[in-house]
Amino acid sequence: MKIDDLIRRPSAWLAASNGTETEIVISSRIRVARNVRDAAFPGWAGDDETIRLFRRLRDALGTVSKLRDGVFWDISALEDLDRHLLRERHLISSELAIKKSGSGVAVSSDETVAVMVNEEDHLRLQIMRPGLDLLAMWKVADRLDSEIEALIPFAFSPRLGFLTACPTNVGTGLRASVMLHLPALRLLNEMEPVSKGLDKIGLAVRGLFGEGTEASGNMFQISNQSTLGESEKAIIQRLLQVVAELIEHEQNARHRLMEGAADRLRDHIGRALGVLNYAHLLPSAEALDSLSGLRLGAETGLLRGVESAMVNDVVMMTQPAHLQKLSAKLLDAVERDRYRARLIRQKLGVVSMV
Amino acid sequence: MKIDDLIRRPSAWLAASNGTETEIVISSRIRVARNVRDAAFPGWAGDDETIRLFRRLRDALGTVSKLRDGVFWDISALEDLDRHLLRERHLISSELAIKKSGSGVAVSSDETVAVMVNEEDHLRLQIMRPGLDLLAMWKVADRLDSEIEALIPFAFSPRLGFLTACPTNVGTGLRASVMLHLPALRLLNEMEPVSKGLDKIGLAVRGLFGEGTEASGNMFQISNQSTLGESEKAIIQRLLQVVAELIEHEQNARHRLMEGAADRLRDHIGRALGVLNYAHLLPSAEALDSLSGLRLGAETGLLRGVESAMVNDVVMMTQPAHLQKLSAKLLDAVERDRYRARLIRQKLGVVSMV
Repeated sequence: MKIDDLIRRPSAWLAASNGTETEIVISSRIRVARNVRDAAFPGWAGDDETIRLFRRLRDALGTVSKLRDGVFWDISALEDLDRHLLRERHLISSELAIKKSGSGVAVSSDETVAVMVNEEDHLRLQIMRPGLDLLAMWKVADRLDSEIEALIPFAFSPRLGFLTACPTNVGTGLRASVMLHLPALRLLNEMEPVSKGLDKIGLAVRGLFGEGTEASGNMFQISNQSTLGESEKAIIQRLLQVVAELIEHEQNARHRLMEGAADRLRDHIGRALGVLNYAHLLPSAEALDSLSGLRLGAETGLLRGVESAMVNDVVMMTQPAHLQKLSAKLLDAVERDRYRARLIRQKLGVVSMV
Repeated sequence: MKIDDLIRRPSAWLAASNGTETEIVISSRIRVARNVRDAAFPGWAGDDETIRLFRRLRDALGTVSKLRDGVFWDISALEDLDRHLLRERHLISSELAIKKSGSGVAVSSDETVAVMVNEEDHLRLQIMRPGLDLLAMWKVADRLDSEIEALIPFAFSPRLGFLTACPTNVGTGLRASVMLHLPALRLLNEMEPVSKGLDKIGLAVRGLFGEGTEASGNMFQISNQSTLGESEKAIIQRLLQVVAELIEHEQNARHRLMEGAADRLRDHIGRALGVLNYAHLLPSAEALDSLSGLRLGAETGLLRGVESAMVNDVVMMTQPAHLQKLSAKLLDAVERDRYRARLIRQKLGVVSMV
């Protein structure tokens, strides 16, 4: 698998899925932080130690069942554009993308499993899938974790659990998160109180690319903040319960818009379609917001000729690095805005209002 | 002629006209202020005197050649909506529209001649036409002026000229103005220096509805500020010369956009079309700005299925009072925005980008 092959297909974790639940749920993610016993955390290790550990982990990952048919990318061997591409596909973090040497990522052939080496921790295991099947995903993560641990002993404290570079990850090392598309709550200005409420019960609300990012395109990532004092299953079940409530809340907001503010809803969706159909210079943030309107239009039945999965695909493909890969050359910001607008006009020419 | 009949046809002064000059020139206007000799100005006259003069002027206007086949509206007899309608058609001023009694307007059957009675002055003669034929229009105004003066002597000082309620109109009492559509200069941020330059040479730049109004829809009204010390022809010729330069300046800006910033131009025009085609709640100012983009698209050949005259008509018909007349009922702001959006979608469904 070459990086250039990635852009020829949608990510499996963004694939179409059925049911109203998964209209609002874009994808779910399990992330587990692990470190090698008796080795300095990446931020503290010297260059030689980092490289030695990097090779050891890379070789080990090459043998585990989920990754055997996949690929391992040494970050230092990648050009900037390729690093951005992996980031845009959520296969690596922003932090890993800027590493100099001794860092990398193992990715399964379907992109649903990725293990970063020498990011903030020695290992960051990640499972990503469409829908909301976090418990099944935890089983996959748990098995992967066990397979790796059989090859490489992890830093573990009987009192604290798994040890991590940052104390916020100590214990289970688990971050379970769900990416939700909540345009109706946003349109009705109800996201701010929701975010505050979630914060109070120990859940974080973040944007499309996690910590410190904006909720572009009305996509919100909900995740557990605490990793200590609860089992993995308990953490996941609590998250699932809250997500179920959020989904209901969003569905309720959509109904309220359709019943009581149909014009406002049609105006919102129509204007989004207008921008996507007619703009010739389309910045990334505006594209995401307009694609959010398009998705809402597809899901409320106000638009024909478009489905959520198609919107997912366009969201992915019109990111800066993806655009440059598609056009096979480096593009400056204005050139990207122009190319993004053109691609979107071509893709969405068939969409119309009901 | 009933007020309700007005909305069934475009104003003659907004009719289609040919030539690139009149793509940029929307319309021209001659306004002449006159007062009756030995009578107090409207602001100073008592109620009885106002009513007496009103009747005398109304009867006199009914006999002059340009107005004989027209209509006279007593403003106090009109409902608010009708007053707004006359205002939107530029037949009366905002000041006249709120008068209580003793004020009115005589309008020729083709709406190109209107004479307001007891506005700021006893008489305000107005000629409006498409294009830029101010000298011919001045002849019409001059003849109308003479016909009225033969019936009613005007306040005139051999030293100052015609006397008016406000000293800024003393002398000729003439305000010649041209409504220009200058979207390219606005897009290139060149209107502010232009406005400043015009101010320095004694010309005023105003918005769609004259003094104190915004330049909505990139329409700018250029007029003489001084009415004293120059003949009417000299005032008009100086205005015409500057307008010719402005037209060239705008044409030049359009060429620069088409040659050097084609994407920006297409983006501007495309987004305007997107809003007009897809919005379901469309406020007045946004509609004007978008219709400006549409007009520019028609005139640069980037849009097909639309002509400037059609845009003029839509601009006129989607004003608040016109909308309410069309729908035959009073509409609140949201209802107007909804109806405006619907009318525009219907009218412009055939427009597309080249």
